[in-house]
Amino acid sequence: MRHQGLFITIEGGDGAGKTTVIGRMAAYLQGRSLPYLITREPGGIEIAEKIRSIILNPEHTAMDARTEALLYAASRAQHLAERVEPALKDGLVVLCDRFVDSSLVYQGHARGLGMDEVEAINQFATGGRTPDLTVYLDIPPEDGLARINASGQREVNRLDLESLAFHKRVREGYLLLAKKHPERIVTLDANRPVAVVEQELIRTLEDRILKDL
Amino acid sequence: MRHQGLFITIEGGDGAGKTTVIGRMAAYLQGRSLPYLITREPGGIEIAEKIRSIILNPEHTAMDARTEALLYAASRAQHLAERVEPALKDGLVVLCDRFVDSSLVYQGHARGLGMDEVEAINQFATGGRTPDLTVYLDIPPEDGLARINASGQREVNRLDLESLAFHKRVREGYLLLAKKHPERIVTLDANRPVAVVEQELIRTLEDRILKDL
Repeated sequence: MRHQGLFITIEGGDGAGKTTVIGRMAAYLQGRSLPYLITREPGGIEIAEKIRSIILNPEHTAMDARTEALLYAASRAQHLAERVEPALKDGLVVLCDRFVDSSLVYQGHARGLGMDEVEAINQFATGGRTPDLTVYLDIPPEDGLARINASGQREVNRLDLESLAFHKRVREGYLLLAKKHPERIVTLDANRPVAVVEQELIRTLEDRILKDL
Repeated sequence: MRHQGLFITIEGGDGAGKTTVIGRMAAYLQGRSLPYLITREPGGIEIAEKIRSIILNPEHTAMDARTEALLYAASRAQHLAERVEPALKDGLVVLCDRFVDSSLVYQGHARGLGMDEVEAINQFATGGRTPDLTVYLDIPPEDGLARINASGQREVNRLDLESLAFHKRVREGYLLLAKKHPERIVTLDANRPVAVVEQELIRTLEDRILKDL
């Protein structure tokens, strides 16, 4: 294991299967005896959790879009400082469910704040830390939302209540980012059987970043 | 009264006398029958209050400096959108106790995050809204902190616990800003009797921004 770990982020709309995919990646890493950490913002970091609870409170309908973007960035800064950076320093493979790309896509593109503007505040939040690899799970929003409704696994929050048009802009934003950063972002068609997605994912991991380990 | 109101911010270290000065300004405006609003972040705005309570919680010793700066910016964005902008639209004179300059000075300069970096996230937070006038009350930090301790008016919070060296950097930051923006920032020597400061303040208001009303 090299001294500095690997930072892998997983992105996609709700219902794309991020949790499943992360589980498969973890099993693969375990099989290769590579130490890893699964996390997502706010990730149990007390300050970040408190920030996140303000964002997701369904009563906060008056929340300004800029406030929301800044709160996501604040939660990210704290989670990065307290959890991700120490793990990378320890040489772990960090699997992070959503990161900066989510803000660029949701706030920057879908809400119309501007990807560049949102990138500027996230550049500040992360101190320039960029993932070594980002796996984007692409799925039409209709199919992703149908999966959530069918699963009944969690409460519907404020973001779920956004219109389908919003979720379509989210997907559009992800596809723009993937085109802009082909060296970092791998797009997987998530509207296929899990076994097929998994196979492609493992091949990607081996080709892209694990071949030297 | 013109259609767009006037946005006046009051800045200075703790104990500089901001509250007293704001009261004098309000009395003056009232005497001229000019409608005004006194506010400060988070200003009773529910979302902004919740954000601020995270910042000021003395238990949050692990708070990353970037997180703190982003939280101040988030609280500011919400307060601006919900309170300041509507009041300015109604033609009021808004007297705001601390604004962007506080973040530039406390986080950017005193904590060493960089004034330009902190200005970038605040540019995002405010959408470019700048005060028409900023009154900076200048006082040596030793004298300001002595005033707070003597008054016993409020609980000591996490920021008060910073070292005297920190508060000296705060003053240094304010003086840098005042030199950089002489057209906007008026520096008043606050280490003088209130009546003297008040006289200079009113003259400043009349000369600078109220002569056309």
